[in-house]
Amino acid sequence: MIYLDNAATTWPKPEETIAAIEDCIRHAGANPGRGGHKMSLSAGRIVYETREAVAKLFKVDDPVRIVFTGNATESLNLALKGLLKPGDHVITSSMEHNSMARPLYVLQKRGVEVTQLQCSPTGTLEPGAVANAIKKNTVAVAILHASNVTGTILPIEEIGRITRANGVFLIVDAAQTAGLLDIDVNRINVDMLAFTGHKSLYGPQGTGGLFIRDGVLPEPLCQGGTGSKSESLEQPEDMPDRFESGTPNTPGLAGLGAGIRFIMSRGLDSIRKHEQVLVARFLEGLKQMKEIQIYGPADPSIQVPVVSVNVRGQDSSEIAFILDKAFDIACRSGLHCAPAAHRTIGTLDRGTVRFSFSIFNTPTEVDYVLDALERTVAELP
Amino acid sequence: MIYLDNAATTWPKPEETIAAIEDCIRHAGANPGRGGHKMSLSAGRIVYETREAVAKLFKVDDPVRIVFTGNATESLNLALKGLLKPGDHVITSSMEHNSMARPLYVLQKRGVEVTQLQCSPTGTLEPGAVANAIKKNTVAVAILHASNVTGTILPIEEIGRITRANGVFLIVDAAQTAGLLDIDVNRINVDMLAFTGHKSLYGPQGTGGLFIRDGVLPEPLCQGGTGSKSESLEQPEDMPDRFESGTPNTPGLAGLGAGIRFIMSRGLDSIRKHEQVLVARFLEGLKQMKEIQIYGPADPSIQVPVVSVNVRGQDSSEIAFILDKAFDIACRSGLHCAPAAHRTIGTLDRGTVRFSFSIFNTPTEVDYVLDALERTVAELP
Repeated sequence: MIYLDNAATTWPKPEETIAAIEDCIRHAGANPGRGGHKMSLSAGRIVYETREAVAKLFKVDDPVRIVFTGNATESLNLALKGLLKPGDHVITSSMEHNSMARPLYVLQKRGVEVTQLQCSPTGTLEPGAVANAIKKNTVAVAILHASNVTGTILPIEEIGRITRANGVFLIVDAAQTAGLLDIDVNRINVDMLAFTGHKSLYGPQGTGGLFIRDGVLPEPLCQGGTGSKSESLEQPEDMPDRFESGTPNTPGLAGLGAGIRFIMSRGLDSIRKHEQVLVARFLEGLKQMKEIQIYGPADPSIQVPVVSVNVRGQDSSEIAFILDKAFDIACRSGLHCAPAAHRTIGTLDRGTVRFSFSIFNTPTEVDYVLDALERTVAELP
Repeated sequence: MIYLDNAATTWPKPEETIAAIEDCIRHAGANPGRGGHKMSLSAGRIVYETREAVAKLFKVDDPVRIVFTGNATESLNLALKGLLKPGDHVITSSMEHNSMARPLYVLQKRGVEVTQLQCSPTGTLEPGAVANAIKKNTVAVAILHASNVTGTILPIEEIGRITRANGVFLIVDAAQTAGLLDIDVNRINVDMLAFTGHKSLYGPQGTGGLFIRDGVLPEPLCQGGTGSKSESLEQPEDMPDRFESGTPNTPGLAGLGAGIRFIMSRGLDSIRKHEQVLVARFLEGLKQMKEIQIYGPADPSIQVPVVSVNVRGQDSSEIAFILDKAFDIACRSGLHCAPAAHRTIGTLDRGTVRFSFSIFNTPTEVDYVLDALERTVAELP
């Protein structure tokens, strides 16, 4: 199988990730931060080491500013619902995934004012539009770092300068960029950064988190046992306990830590270059096929390794079906949980066929997919 | 190491659990319910099979009534915050874990009226007290099935008859009983049942869920991508999508499914008998030591395999420390995230030393621990 659905979940995982999960279950399978016995301490150490690895990756000084969740969706719900109150104004974009758009819609119904900035047909946004949209009651800009539909990288650094200058919080959905682009939370001026473990961090599904800058104090989504200040009914104020109730996904976090160490040992630069080579080769081939329409920037220097296309006149699901059945190529069709993005690029009616690459894909695979697409197009009625 | 902290997390896990997790990551490592390609369908099948296994275990007719979460804490937050509105009245007990008590405390501050029924010094509750506490605005009884401190099993069936007769919802925290006691959601008349995967269901940490009876419609904790009705900003109403946003912990759920198949193949009756034998042997030995105070019913027929003790005059953490360092016994000291329970049994000042057993513990281990306790007591100043 040629797996090109890495924007959903990267596959395969590094052997290190799988080994760390198994090792954790076998040798550190107790509750972290709860008991005082040796295996509980080992479990606690694993969680802490992963927290440190995430902090190092995002250039966060204090690892306790990293809160673990089950996925980026939970992180965004925590950031948005924890921060925004009725009467507050929030600015977002027209490229958002439902993980951002649906909680914002719920908040809007509760009295939060939401401005959705229109992105260009390739999915990007003029930073000036953000500055123009800021009002007296604007509390936050909540925006994705790169699109899961077109791969378009948004101008987060410029937006961060604007939010910082205006005393507005910046909430970034880094689901598609964490582990792929060099994210420095201070350079970007991001106040809360949501990430997931199972994409370009090469951890397992069931892991994710949120960076919360010191001084930003959202309400927790959940309260419960934290293994700390147990005598009090008040949720502890300390980080990360305030936001981490109940037993965490320790083996998952072991795998996430191994995934991050894997990408850091390869080097983000070298991974980015590898994936840019694949995307460039893929785009070059696609551009030769006149039946293929490419969405997004079609420029590997300003997009993550996600390429959306359509075959003229064809439904996206039909093409993905043929590629799976006849060529054993796993890609994804439809709306990718991001209807706003499809409205922006003009594909709300039929979605797109999306190909997304990881460090494990090869130029040979790209050529095979191009050939498969050519043959599919040729055989269409 | 003798591991007796199974009420926190069972360890070791069955080989089947570990194998299922690895197999899922290697061979079904895509997103369930999102793509149409073969590996995405395999992932979807795993999640569905685990949902079926949970449904079968709890005698739930329709598997979609089972919603997956990260742990019992998240399940209880969802059940309580999703259901209770300001002005509603909820009845709870004085034995609750902070996973129940802390979200109820937050709700109380938002205007929900909370009645905490006082349990007996062994941790049980007279069902009549529930009937007496029901008022016009009572919406739910929210109560644990068995105590994580004393092991005491609460009279849930009797309480369920009372709630059903009075048109009040019953929310049960089954963290300590799922997989251990025979839970039939219809016999118990439970409306929402919270469970965790990493205790007596022998799955990994990072898994859990909530049974939600048809007709009970809490608000979701999170909204986001569900892979369904993606064109709408409204969270889908369908079960389980309404409550499951973002990529789930598929490998964790693979492990949970294997864990449930493991206990079902052994038979809940036979597991219960095994653990009752261990608890009976342990209690018998403890009763010979005049320095030891036992909490809870001290009767294996009415408790789960959790036994809390103190050595007269000693801090619980000191005893647990000696058992770990000198005898390589992993138990747990302190409040076990359940201060109300300790207030009820009179140990809020120093906690208890808690021993909890799993299917993998043996009578020889029980004897070793009894011997270690005897020697520890003998050497105390």
